[in-house]
Formats: sequence, C-alpha cells, structure tokens
Amino acid sequence: MVRVGVVGCGYWGPNLIRNIYQLDCCDLAMICDADPQRLARVGKLYPGVTLTTSFQDVLDSGAVDAVVIATPARTHHAMTGQALAAGKHVLVEKPLAVTSPQCQDLISLAKQQGLVLMVGHTFLYNPALLMVKELSQPEYLGDLFYLYSHRVNLGRVQTDVNALWSIAPHDISIALFLVGQAPEKVSAQGAYYLSNQIEDVVFITLTFPGGVMGHIHVSWIDPSKTRKVTVVGSEKMIIYDDLADEGMVKVYDKGVKRVSNGEGPQYGEFQYRLHSGDVHLPRIRMTEPLANECRHFIECILENKTPTSDGENGLQVVQVLEAAQRSIELQGMPMPVASGQLQPHTVA
Amino acid sequence: MVRVGVVGCGYWGPNLIRNIYQLDCCDLAMICDADPQRLARVGKLYPGVTLTTSFQDVLDSGAVDAVVIATPARTHHAMTGQALAAGKHVLVEKPLAVTSPQCQDLISLAKQQGLVLMVGHTFLYNPALLMVKELSQPEYLGDLFYLYSHRVNLGRVQTDVNALWSIAPHDISIALFLVGQAPEKVSAQGAYYLSNQIEDVVFITLTFPGGVMGHIHVSWIDPSKTRKVTVVGSEKMIIYDDLADEGMVKVYDKGVKRVSNGEGPQYGEFQYRLHSGDVHLPRIRMTEPLANECRHFIECILENKTPTSDGENGLQVVQVLEAAQRSIELQGMPMPVASGQLQPHTVA
Amino acid sequence: MVRVGVVGCGYWGPNLIRNIYQLDCCDLAMICDADPQRLARVGKLYPGVTLTTSFQDVLDSGAVDAVVIATPARTHHAMTGQALAAGKHVLVEKPLAVTSPQCQDLISLAKQQGLVLMVGHTFLYNPALLMVKELSQPEYLGDLFYLYSHRVNLGRVQTDVNALWSIAPHDISIALFLVGQAPEKVSAQGAYYLSNQIEDVVFITLTFPGGVMGHIHVSWIDPSKTRKVTVVGSEKMIIYDDLADEGMVKVYDKGVKRVSNGEGPQYGEFQYRLHSGDVHLPRIRMTEPLANECRHFIECILENKTPTSDGENGLQVVQVLEAAQRSIELQGMPMPVASGQLQPHTVA
Amino acid sequence: MVRVGVVGCGYWGPNLIRNIYQLDCCDLAMICDADPQRLARVGKLYPGVTLTTSFQDVLDSGAVDAVVIATPARTHHAMTGQALAAGKHVLVEKPLAVTSPQCQDLISLAKQQGLVLMVGHTFLYNPALLMVKELSQPEYLGDLFYLYSHRVNLGRVQTDVNALWSIAPHDISIALFLVGQAPEKVSAQGAYYLSNQIEDVVFITLTFPGGVMGHIHVSWIDPSKTRKVTVVGSEKMIIYDDLADEGMVKVYDKGVKRVSNGEGPQYGEFQYRLHSGDVHLPRIRMTEPLANECRHFIECILENKTPTSDGENGLQVVQVLEAAQRSIELQGMPMPVASGQLQPHTVA
Repeated sequence: MVRVGVVGCGYWGPNLIRNIYQLDCCDLAMICDADPQRLARVGKLYPGVTLTTSFQDVLDSGAVDAVVIATPARTHHAMTGQALAAGKHVLVEKPLAVTSPQCQDLISLAKQQGLVLMVGHTFLYNPALLMVKELSQPEYLGDLFYLYSHRVNLGRVQTDVNALWSIAPHDISIALFLVGQAPEKVSAQGAYYLSNQIEDVVFITLTFPGGVMGHIHVSWIDPSKTRKVTVVGSEKMIIYDDLADEGMVKVYDKGVKRVSNGEGPQYGEFQYRLHSGDVHLPRIRMTEPLANECRHFIECILENKTPTSDGENGLQVVQVLEAAQRSIELQGMPMPVASGQLQPHTVA
Repeated sequence: MVRVGVVGCGYWGPNLIRNIYQLDCCDLAMICDADPQRLARVGKLYPGVTLTTSFQDVLDSGAVDAVVIATPARTHHAMTGQALAAGKHVLVEKPLAVTSPQCQDLISLAKQQGLVLMVGHTFLYNPALLMVKELSQPEYLGDLFYLYSHRVNLGRVQTDVNALWSIAPHDISIALFLVGQAPEKVSAQGAYYLSNQIEDVVFITLTFPGGVMGHIHVSWIDPSKTRKVTVVGSEKMIIYDDLADEGMVKVYDKGVKRVSNGEGPQYGEFQYRLHSGDVHLPRIRMTEPLANECRHFIECILENKTPTSDGENGLQVVQVLEAAQRSIELQGMPMPVASGQLQPHTVA
Repeated sequence: MVRVGVVGCGYWGPNLIRNIYQLDCCDLAMICDADPQRLARVGKLYPGVTLTTSFQDVLDSGAVDAVVIATPARTHHAMTGQALAAGKHVLVEKPLAVTSPQCQDLISLAKQQGLVLMVGHTFLYNPALLMVKELSQPEYLGDLFYLYSHRVNLGRVQTDVNALWSIAPHDISIALFLVGQAPEKVSAQGAYYLSNQIEDVVFITLTFPGGVMGHIHVSWIDPSKTRKVTVVGSEKMIIYDDLADEGMVKVYDKGVKRVSNGEGPQYGEFQYRLHSGDVHLPRIRMTEPLANECRHFIECILENKTPTSDGENGLQVVQVLEAAQRSIELQGMPMPVASGQLQPHTVA
Repeated sequence: MVRVGVVGCGYWGPNLIRNIYQLDCCDLAMICDADPQRLARVGKLYPGVTLTTSFQDVLDSGAVDAVVIATPARTHHAMTGQALAAGKHVLVEKPLAVTSPQCQDLISLAKQQGLVLMVGHTFLYNPALLMVKELSQPEYLGDLFYLYSHRVNLGRVQTDVNALWSIAPHDISIALFLVGQAPEKVSAQGAYYLSNQIEDVVFITLTFPGGVMGHIHVSWIDPSKTRKVTVVGSEKMIIYDDLADEGMVKVYDKGVKRVSNGEGPQYGEFQYRLHSGDVHLPRIRMTEPLANECRHFIECILENKTPTSDGENGLQVVQVLEAAQRSIELQGMPMPVASGQLQPHTVA
C-alpha cells in the first residue's frame, strides 16, 4: 500500500486529494498547504489524515512514500527536486517545470534515485481521448493530415501565467499523443487585454515531421465554453467534444481522394473524389480521468513501470511551450523545438 | 434602367444571373460563357436574353451598360480592365485581382473612366453581418479585443487556387469591416495534402493597429461544415453563426474587468471581475445578401455613389492575401501589410 | 410518355408542377387554377404549357392522361371523382377526401375504371423514412414498443381546417407505415385559441393491435419548428429528425431487458438490465421526396402497378382522422377505428 | 436551530441529507434507514450524526424537531402520519401519499397538531422555473394558451410504481404552478412493455378552466434524455430546457393574432398576423433547488409560515394522478378531477 502526501489545496489539489483518498491501492497519509485556513477547510473532509503547513514535514515523514504536487508552476522544479532528493516518488501537476533545463534536471534526478517521476497530463488518462487515439491508427484513419483544438471559456483568468502556460499544456500533450511524435517547429501569436504582458488568447501552430500540422486556440475571454479536438485523416475524420452530452467522440466516414482524370494522370490533371458516409458515435465507458491518472501513478510505483506521462513527456511539452513563448515574443516567427537531449544532473 | 451583361456561368455565376434577372432596377441583357453547353443550359432559364460565347461581344454591345464578372480569379484583372476600357461599370467577383498592382491598375482605370468598380464581398451586404457591425460599436461592445472566424467544410476543393485565396477573402473582408481598418501585420501557416503546393488548410493571424487581433481558419477538408465569426469585446461578446437555424447572431452580455484589489491598486495587485448576464438573439430580417449586393451595384451606377466594397476595399483584401501568402511560404513569418498607395494607371 | 395536368397553384401545387416538369418520364401538359392571376404567375415559369382556369378543360382535354390535384381538402372527392370518371389517372394531395365513404367511393370508381388512384402521402417516398422503416425490422429493432411524433411550428395557420386534418395526415401515414397496420383505437384532444372550433393544437394517441402505441403532437402555434419521429424498440431506438443538418436518422443501440433476479424468477422478482451502446447516424442518400412520389405515380401508370399510397392507404388515414375528430369532440373518449370495408360505388 | 432527522437512504435520501447537513439554519440530528449497510455507507460521510435502523427511534427522539421522509411512496401516509402524531414537522418526498383520502388525512392531522407539512415538489424551488413563472404573467405572456412537458430518459425503471406516479408528479406540479389552478379534467393513456401492469410510458392531457390545456409525456424507455417544458402564450412563448448548458430558459417574442380582413370583420373573414421577433435567454442565478426547498421548510417552521408546496398542493397533485390513473385504466376516457374538499381527520 503506497502512502501518499498531497501538497497544495488550491484549485486543483482538492480533486487530487479526493481521488487519492478513494483509491484502494494507496493511502492518503498527509495533506500540506502553506495557508492554514485553506488546509483546515479541505482537511475537515478527511478526518484522520495528517495536516501540515510545512512542506519539510512531508519530506521528512517516514509515513509518506510518494508526493503529489499541485502548487503553482514556478514552484514545480524546486519542490519536485526536493521530494525526489528525499526519496519520494512524485506526481506533479502540468507543466513539469517552467524551463526545459529544469525538466532535464528532474528527469536526471529521478533516474539517479530510481524513483517514479510523472506529470499530470490528465487527458492521456481520459477514456474519450484513448478512444480517439485508437481510432487514429493509419489502417482506420488513413493518413493523418492535421488536427486542431479549441479550448476557450470565460473565466479562470490567471495573473501570474498566460493562457499559453495555463491552458495549452492540455492541447500540446494531446497533440503529441495523437501524432505520436514531437513537432519540429512552432509558431504562435498571442494578445493581452486584461493585464500587461499576460496573454489572454493564444494561437499556436505546430509543424510535425512529415507535414502533419497541429493548431491550438486557447483563451480565457470567450463567450462560449468549448473543449474540442478535430482530427482530419484521409479516410476518416474525428471530432472529440469534451462537453458533449451525447457522442463525445464522433467518427465521420469522410475523406477526399485524388483520382486521375480519365485515362491517366497525363497533363498533370487530377480530380478529387469526396466520400461522405455514416457518422458513428462510439460508446465511451467513461471513468474519471484523474482517478485513472492517480491509479497509474501508484501502479508505476508498485510495478516499477515508466508512466505514460513521464518526465520525458513532460519535457517535450515544456519544449513546445518554450518555443511557442519565444514565437509569441517575436510576433509569430516560427521557432524550432529543441530536441530533448538530457543533461547531467546539476544541483537543484 | 441599367442593362447588365453577366460573364461566367460556373459555380457562382448562375446566382448572380438569377439576382440580376429578378431585380426591378436593372435588365439582364446578356449572358456570356466560353463553354457553349454551359451557356445553353443556364440560358434556357432566361428566354429572351442574348447569349454569347465571346466576351468581345459583351464589350462591343451597345445594349450593355454594366458587366458582372464571375470568372476564375486569374482572369479578373484582364477582363475587368477591358470592360472598364470599353466604358462599362463592373462588379467583379472576389478577389478583385491576384496582385495588388493589378488592383491599383483597375482602381486608376475606373477613376479615369468615371465608372463604378465594385468587388463581390458578399458578406458586407449580409443583414446578419450588418447587425453584428451595429452591435460592435464601442458604446455597446466596449473595447474590441479580438475576433476570429472559422470557415471549413468538406468539398469545393480547388485545383488552381489554395484555400487562402478561395475561402479567406470572405473572412478578411469581414474582419476589415468589423475592425474598421486594415491590419498592420499578417502571419499565416498552411498545409497541403491533396495537391502539391495548393494549401488545403490555412490559419491566418491579423494584427491591427492598437492591438486588436484577428484569426482566421479556413479549410476544405473538415468533417463539419462551419461558418462562424466570434467577436470579443470588453462589455459584450458576439457569435455570428451563418448556419444556425435559430439565432444566427447571439449577443452575450459577458465580459471581464480589471478591478483594483481592496483599497487601491497598490503593490500592483489586481483582480478580475467577470460578468455573465443574459444572452440575446436579435431577430434578423434576412434578405438574400447577393440580391442586396447587386442592388447596391445598380444604385451606385444610378446615383453615382462609391460602393461599400469598392476597388480600394478590394485592394486592401488582396494586400492581406498577398502578405498571408508570403507568410505561408516563410512558415509563419509575420509580414507587414502594404499600405494601399495608388499608382498611376499603366496599360493593362 | 404520360401527359399530366396539374390542378391548383396554391401553397403546394407549384412544388408538384416543378417536379412534374422536371421528370423525364412525363410531360407537364396543362396547369389549372381558378384564380387567373395566380395561374399566370406560376405559368410564366413554364412557357409552352397550356394554362386554364377551368377544371372542365382539363377533364375534356385529349392531351391529358393523368391529373394531379392540389386543391383544398373539401374539393378532393368531387374533383378526383370527376377526373376518374373522365378516364384520367389521379394523384391527389392528402387527405384523399374528408370522409371515409367518400374515400371508398373513389376507390371503387378507380377500380371500375381501371385507373391509378394515388394519395400524396409524401413521407412514404422520403429516403430518410424508408431508412427508418428498414431499421425497424424486428431482427434489428427487437419488439416495437411505441413511437411518437412531434410536428409543430409557428405559422401556416388554416382557417377552414384544423391542425388535425392539416398536419396530422403526415404523422398518421408515417405511423401506419412504420407499424405496418392500422390502429384499433384512437384517442385525441385538441384546443382552439385563434378561431372558434378550429383546433390549433392536437394530441393523438393510437392503439395498435398487440399493444404498440403511437402518439402524435401537432400544432401551428409553437415557438420552435420541430419535425421529429421517435421509434422505441426493445433492442434499438431511432430518432428521425427531419430538420437535422447532420444525422437526420440516429440509431441508438439502447434497450432494457427484464432479467430474472439471481437464481431464477422465483417470488416474481425481476430486475432490468439496461444497455446503452453506440449511436449510429447512417448516411441518407437524400433525394426530393416529392420527385420520388411523382415518379412513382408515373411508374404505376406505365407499369400498371398499385401505388404504395393507394386509395386504401388514403382511406385508412382518413378513418384514423375521423376517429380522432370524434374523440376530440368527446374530449378524449377513445374511439374504435372503422375497418376499411369497401362499399359498392355510388354516384359521386 | 431546527434539528432534523432524515429517513431513507435510497436514491434520493442522500441528496436531502447532504443539503440538510450543509444548511446553516438547521442541524442534521439523525439518519434512519432500515438497511444497516446502506445506513452505514451514507452515515460514514457525516461523522457525529446519530444513525438508526428504527423509525421509532426517530419518533421518540427528543433531539429531533422535524423529519424529512424519503421512503417509497406507499409508506408516505403511515410514516408521515406517525411523525406528525409524534409532534414532528414533516417534509415528505412526492407524492404526498398514494390516495387523496390519505392526503386529506395528513392535512387534517398537521392542522390539528399545528405542524408544518410540506411535500418535496422540488421544481417549485427551482430558480429557472421561478423565472418561467415570472415571465408567464399575462401582461408579458399575453393569454396563456397551452403548455406541454416532456420528461423522458432510459433508466430508473421502477418495479412497484408506474411512470405516471414516478415521474409525472414533477410535471403535474409544474403545470399547476404555472397555470395557477387545478385542472378540471384529465385524460391519460399509458402502455407497459417491461412489466405487467406497470406503465413505462404515459401521455396525459389536462384541461384547465377557461380552456388552457396541458400535456405531459413521461417515459423511462426513451433514447434521448429530455426534460423540457414549453409554454405558449398569445404574445410570448417560453421553452424551459432543464438540461441546456446555455439558456435553460428561452423566451420567444412570437405570437399569432387574429386581425380582421380589410375594412372590417364582415362576412366572418379573418386573417392571422404572425410576429416572430427576438429570442431572449435571461441569465438564471442558479442555486440548487433542493437546497432552496430544504431552506424553505426550515423557514416555514421557524416563521410559522405555510409552505409553497404544502399539504393542499400535495393533495391537488395526487388528485390529478388518481384521475390520470383511472383514465389510463379506461383507455383515455376523460376523468373529472375531484375538488380538494378536506375531510375531518380520521385515525391514521
């Protein structure tokens, strides 16, 4: 039985605490938050669990095997590093850290220590997205042409981090997962209206090897709540609408094929044949993605496995975020994405 | 009574012919198409109208005061130029021409000749978009933050022109109309899957003076037909869904405001207050945009007025298209938009 | 080549005229309407077709083999009878007539004369409904439990006939077609608000042999245009939404089964097992129902076949309408539906 | 501070328990369920609250001022009667009881004892329905013509009570609330497919004084979850869709008016003028209806007020249910609704 301490009782932490508490394969051993009132409010729901305002208590506790970190992004590197150094397995909220050297640092440290390091890219544990992934195999989808996602709403305006770093990690991890590789280049543009220098809306274009394109639109000032990913293949097209009541995943038997015009492709003449057949809404056996994520973390600890969203995966997402941020600053200039070469571990 | 000749019986021409025929203020005098079969098929519906396969016949005819041109984009400059030179008023389909010098050439020529030159930016004559424009006044919308449009479908794949030049002129003319000025910079990215070098999907970001941002997504390989424009202001937000059965225009009483935190804006601390009130779907008295466009053309001739979508407007749209095309070729590199200085007329 | 005269240029007639005109297998020979202005307006679109304000001209014409009647319901019996007596095949708009004896009269007369008599129950020629029918086979749908339809809108308020006789013939013919037999009993309730005694809204319940139930809701004062039929079976459920952009027919792999509780059905204890699987939107190759209907009429004439919506079918629908009307007058009292025994022909 | 005991930990009870627990104006003093396992499972979430499997304990407890009863309908009369006799205020789930004499009995007893008797007609405490009620005033809606509701789903199949008694109490209480009076007559038809004599689908027509009509469709075997009420007035029409993400209440500025044709209403000639204006989606400040209901119960106790859904209201709903049940048994025969004359109290 893995004993878990959860750090951070803000917006997302309580969801992690609830799931860790409900899982059979682990014990919620400790809850930590620097704000005593917030700690007390959350802790009241879990009588018998140790509460502390000191992260050092968690690190020092012999009753904690693993730590789940749900604190602001800028603290991820230091706290995750300290927890790994203290011999704890770590599940840290996305993004893994705020720079790729920080990420590489944590990856090295986890490796040295022989500990599990996992990032909370929740969608990789979402049954609907797993269905989309399964349906995106080439023998079914045909060639993957492009995909785009749209994640907008009114609200959750952040004051310390822009919409790129706050919202887009979801879409980047989804795109990397569905395409199956990292992009070569990123172009992004953003605009800020509410705060100085904090982009409220960001558009990102990803160029993958082989010509696959990904596009992402995130915003926290939009009239209509939308969470949607569209995947366009040569044989099938898929829409994954996270907010749909019925049919979160819609598979369209639609496509275009180039056919030679008449006798043969002479004179460079081509025509296009469209097909537009049935639409299929596969039944998704929905389970809470966060519960699946937490269970996966515990299983990786118990069975000594590498998580789907391991440190490398977290690094790739941060590399895309970094390139996008630079591109925004250069008004859309396309930026290469650093390939994730690991550095030797340096002192955190 | 203005006597009109329509040139081109392809995809769009028949719609123009029908509207010209039905208007009270003009006479459909002549129909021209190089393909005799297509000409006969369309002509059959309008007994008594002169049919010709020769554009020269139209130019020479003393029974034609104005010409409506619905031929491929690459022919617009030459045919419009010839018609103006022959003393005919011209309504030409979008885009006005395929380069901005060509556009400037036509503008100069029309001016010299004292003739009406108008481009078929249909949405500027669409009652729903006019409603959106009216609702976008600052005293109602607040500050205009950004707007984005999404015009995708499966079909109408072109083989000689990409999705940028084929579809985006609509969205560019809409954006320029709603923002009320031309963008300073354009960044665009596209990808082709069906034909070599003919982009099937294009994403465009427009940067307007003062920080207003516009974003456009066009594609002809998409599972779901969508024609939607979203306008985000500080006080109101508007969605114009051209395909909605009910409520093509939805006005959201939604917004975010920065408020100082507590006593005053000391320590640079701010908070955001969201408001999310009623949604209103104003009744649109819908009339066919193309009928309105044709009527406007005739009125400009009769009353010697400048069309809303005059040559200058057509030039601005082409300047944005050119900048976007260059940006696509440079993988998203932001491009300045040439300001539309008019050149003296040169021989076409 | 069958030569057709169409009688009636009101709301629906022009649609019939257009389809008869466009079909290859027949000639539009004559158009008749008592109102000379309306006749001229419609006739203008079909140069060369004989126009007349006299129905007698149509009856007397040697150039007319078949007559299509789109006049008010109360005239159907007399005009159809006269046309049959004059040796013309007849396609008459629904309802066949306004009483079942009138229907029987026409059936007998057509039989005596050896002519085709067909009623315009358009939905029986609608590809979407034919798909629903095909999917309603017991080996796929399981037991048919019940079906209901909802056909409401704001508009087309009639002043001489209520919503039952004006709108419900569609739904009754659909229900009879899908269930495959006539109902035993009908209960209906209606209410009038605009005119005295002309029901604006009507609810009808049909009881079929074997317990299948049908329910119909029609109204011409409703906020939201709806045309929807739901079919509930033990293995599958189907929604046919005539106004859906995408997926007019949705097939739900849903059902409930009674299972014995535990070891066996002892103590009369049962439980229900629900299944809720995929949803499927079959591609409908849509063609205009009215074109199919007209083509079927011509084929029945040429090949001496009995129409799907023949006189008997028209009679069954009228018998249900009569029973529903009586039930409305008795405030919902259930009424038996007369079985359609044919009477010997009497003088019209 | 009112001390409350909640009886019944089945489907609905836990929601009541949670709300009673969270309210500031009362204390959750006791939880009772005959099934010790179910009791323990629910009780675990409320440490410190007394748990008991004996209803008598609740009745005898000096620490309980009021009882909330969420047990099967057939037990409502006996348990509510015993609680009132023991001096406890009672909030009982709908329906108040299963016969109108039982209801009258409870009303008399509550009166004798001077205690609050309230029925859980939740929708009367739903902010969206209260908005609909407010918008249904004659000066805004015009004449109320008719209303209909549609409450269907797949699931919650009951084995001891039909869809009428299980689902329709919601719709009946809504209809009575919006119309503002009880219906004079009820006609209903139902059909059973899963169990013998337990109707799975029921259609109900209510006739109110003055000609207002109400129609209700309930079912637990339907492909598509729907909870919708439509109100049709002469000036406005309203759709309340309980499952809508955006715009639960839609107000249509639509209507039909009879106007005299031309100079005057001579010859009995009339025409209808339709208007179809804006659609408005008022912002609903949504709060949990059940929380509002529980708070209202406590307030009525503290302030000695009559609840909105008092015993009389509960009786009216049961009278409609009884009439509907009789009508179902007589295949739709219209049934008068007993007027709610109170009987002297008899021994429970």
